[in-house]
Amino acid sequence: MTVTIIGLGLIGGSMAIDLKARRFSDRVIGVDRNPKHREIAQERGLVDEVLTLHAGIAQADIIVLAIPVDSIKQLLPTILDYCTHQVVTDMGSSKLEIIETVKGHPNRANYVPFHPMAGTEFSGPEAALPGLFAKKVGIICDMADSNQKALETVTNLYMALNMRLIFMNAKEHDLHAAYVSHISHLTSFALALTVLEKEKNEKNIFNLASGGFDSTVRLAASSAEMWVPIFSQNKQNVIKVMDTFIEKMQALKNSIAEGDDKKVEQLIHEANSIQKTLTQ
Amino acid sequence: MTVTIIGLGLIGGSMAIDLKARRFSDRVIGVDRNPKHREIAQERGLVDEVLTLHAGIAQADIIVLAIPVDSIKQLLPTILDYCTHQVVTDMGSSKLEIIETVKGHPNRANYVPFHPMAGTEFSGPEAALPGLFAKKVGIICDMADSNQKALETVTNLYMALNMRLIFMNAKEHDLHAAYVSHISHLTSFALALTVLEKEKNEKNIFNLASGGFDSTVRLAASSAEMWVPIFSQNKQNVIKVMDTFIEKMQALKNSIAEGDDKKVEQLIHEANSIQKTLTQ
Repeated sequence: MTVTIIGLGLIGGSMAIDLKARRFSDRVIGVDRNPKHREIAQERGLVDEVLTLHAGIAQADIIVLAIPVDSIKQLLPTILDYCTHQVVTDMGSSKLEIIETVKGHPNRANYVPFHPMAGTEFSGPEAALPGLFAKKVGIICDMADSNQKALETVTNLYMALNMRLIFMNAKEHDLHAAYVSHISHLTSFALALTVLEKEKNEKNIFNLASGGFDSTVRLAASSAEMWVPIFSQNKQNVIKVMDTFIEKMQALKNSIAEGDDKKVEQLIHEANSIQKTLTQ
Repeated sequence: MTVTIIGLGLIGGSMAIDLKARRFSDRVIGVDRNPKHREIAQERGLVDEVLTLHAGIAQADIIVLAIPVDSIKQLLPTILDYCTHQVVTDMGSSKLEIIETVKGHPNRANYVPFHPMAGTEFSGPEAALPGLFAKKVGIICDMADSNQKALETVTNLYMALNMRLIFMNAKEHDLHAAYVSHISHLTSFALALTVLEKEKNEKNIFNLASGGFDSTVRLAASSAEMWVPIFSQNKQNVIKVMDTFIEKMQALKNSIAEGDDKKVEQLIHEANSIQKTLTQ
């Protein structure tokens, strides 16, 4: 089984490591338009060989798109054009717009839209690491629109990475992704911007950051190249969740400003119940 | 050296564990008005004995207040009234209001205001754990208002916990604490409230939470008993930082809504620089 991974960053690189380590594929081909990424991927031995996009597609059994969602949207129709036997999947964090672009494509059924709930705040092939996907949830979208062979192949691929697979339609996926992943990145970015504006003295931030700040702001290191197109493609859901979030912050702020401790307490108790959900 | 810890929760309990393990004190006395806490602290062997407040004060060389900041404010003047030779310190996350209540007290110089930048989202003696304070920053406030013996004793105490001590005036402390700790808890609470409102199906939250949500929302499990009085005592700074945070969220939202990808990218790049600060 030859797997061609397009995009040798954190996600593509980590995938390559595990596909080789777990012997799912006897050959992993890497494709990346960034010469620096190609070089690091080869130096680190992430892939067996680096080829051009055209050669990578031609020689693949499975093609994995592990690039920003705007690039996926742009490249996916062309890749499906070239498909004969190949199965195609992608690792994008928004799904609806991407799927729209290949609606009615003669090879649409060869494609399985996917989103792994895994990652770190770092990016590039130097950030790739083994086990990134292990035990993490992976979401297969609109499965009825993929053919049996494509679904089986892709399921085996992600099972080889030790993921827990779930199934959703793309619309539902984009809504949940906004609420449980995209908003977290936005609050981290806003938190970083807030603190950077106020704390001119970086030493203060560093010294005090162990008070919980470090974990809440961790995602603020995430790459703009990856996230700008996600927010753009999932704009409607993202705006809705940001509005709700701002309302909740306002409610907390007003209760604190008014000295309404009972109300603040009630809001915190309500928020506390998230813990039960996360550890169920 | 006999240390009396008032409040046997996460902070007081963790402190007791390390003071005994590191042999700083030959006797650790625990005081807690909650019978359940007293019982668990004894079962877990966190302290050598549990006494009443009065006996705990009388027999102490050092008294540590590890209770919510509203209780510290209420109790500290009385404790200073009873002080003869005892040194007093507290672990509260806001400092200015607490210090105000003992301004001009004849034993003010026996007291050293302190704030450890350490904790977890859990609470109670069952959450106490060894090494909680190791390598964390601890802030001593308004040191000029404490006497030499009190400063030396308290410095030795916190050094025995392997903390990195820094010094600030209380006003400065409360400002920085709002920006680097208090706001993180507020954004986590708001995030939890947002997601809980939308995601009626808890299974979805649980399944998708590995996408960064778990680390940003971790602090939402924090206790209302501890945090309501912190927000109240540090109200002015907290409101200011919340306003700035809401502005930043609005700026991100407006740029996304307008499809201004260049602006979103610029804001993310700006936010990214927090990483450099945290890993310096």
